[in-house]
Amino acid sequence: MAWFQRTFRLPAFRRGFHLVTDQVASNVPEISQVNIGLAHIFIHHTSAGLTLNENADPTVRIDFESHFNKMVPENAPYYKHNYEGSDDMPAHIKASLLGNSVMIPITNGRLNLGTWQGIYLCEHRNHASGRRITVTIQGE
Amino acid sequence: MAWFQRTFRLPAFRRGFHLVTDQVASNVPEISQVNIGLAHIFIHHTSAGLTLNENADPTVRIDFESHFNKMVPENAPYYKHNYEGSDDMPAHIKASLLGNSVMIPITNGRLNLGTWQGIYLCEHRNHASGRRITVTIQGE
Amino acid sequence: MAWFQRTFRLPAFRRGFHLVTDQVASNVPEISQVNIGLAHIFIHHTSAGLTLNENADPTVRIDFESHFNKMVPENAPYYKHNYEGSDDMPAHIKASLLGNSVMIPITNGRLNLGTWQGIYLCEHRNHASGRRITVTIQGE
Repeated sequence: MAWFQRTFRLPAFRRGFHLVTDQVASNVPEISQVNIGLAHIFIHHTSAGLTLNENADPTVRIDFESHFNKMVPENAPYYKHNYEGSDDMPAHIKASLLGNSVMIPITNGRLNLGTWQGIYLCEHRNHASGRRITVTIQGE
Repeated sequence: MAWFQRTFRLPAFRRGFHLVTDQVASNVPEISQVNIGLAHIFIHHTSAGLTLNENADPTVRIDFESHFNKMVPENAPYYKHNYEGSDDMPAHIKASLLGNSVMIPITNGRLNLGTWQGIYLCEHRNHASGRRITVTIQGE
Repeated sequence: MAWFQRTFRLPAFRRGFHLVTDQVASNVPEISQVNIGLAHIFIHHTSAGLTLNENADPTVRIDFESHFNKMVPENAPYYKHNYEGSDDMPAHIKASLLGNSVMIPITNGRLNLGTWQGIYLCEHRNHASGRRITVTIQGE
């Protein structure tokens, strides 16, 4: 297999950081056919992001939400883009800070993550619906 | 087509965030020959970056500039690298926060961006000249 | 050559930002066999990151450390994940802000970095041991 691509929708998550490694991987079982390669996981949105971080203690994800809310506050006096709700402009900034894709090595048919690494969906809106993801797999 | 790479220069932009999706895409019409693939867009600089964010309301880009100027201020008392102008050290930090490349799926001959996603050139210097970009396309 | 992948360990670095371009490149001499391609450099950890920034004046790296310590402080009152040391939760946040991989074009057998670009290891822990890196090279 040289190239494989699939688009799917993650279900709606509440605002915050959510571990979605298994949900992503289960949508692309074709990873098991790749000995050496890369998986590119891309979110088609500008108010949610993807990152890799600790997959164990859920308080890490809670602290991410607390910290990003402080670092990128709602209702900053300098915001001009404020007609889509107070959570909207901070969501755009957070999305670019954290990034809209992750690229993970594939080795021997598996995502070659570190022991403690998992994929986070970073949901920055208060009332988002599901989020569209495209995974592109390449390798040999 | 398996691999294609081209280096070009975007014209000088003033400090701020600028939507450059069309300017980037017009330099690599070879995207149209790829059914499934990836486009890697890389900036060869350390005081400007690339990110994806909202392609519609220009106030989003204005608010990005306001927020990053506050988050990464000029003349912080702890800066030691200050002999290239007060905008230089913040530019380096902003470049690493936002990142120096974006990777976008290609599907059916087009950059498979979300409806609201566009490519931003993040220009952090006051008086930059043009910025050198390399796009690498791979796919089948 | 189509695909090549190697995992290696960078030695322990003290907390801060460190230029590791040569150490990374020397582990993958196979880059010299690629005319057009991409190198993906991935760190298998959640409290250290990789970014590209200025390779010349070391005060840039010192200012990065100062700024990120201010932007992501230790002992924030809202942290719940604090039993692994005061440097741990900030390290997770910094790792996601800066990112855990860089993707660099390969052109004519070399990493096609800008004149002033180098690879930084971003070490956010006080007493880390070495860090595991996987480089995946693809091209023709």
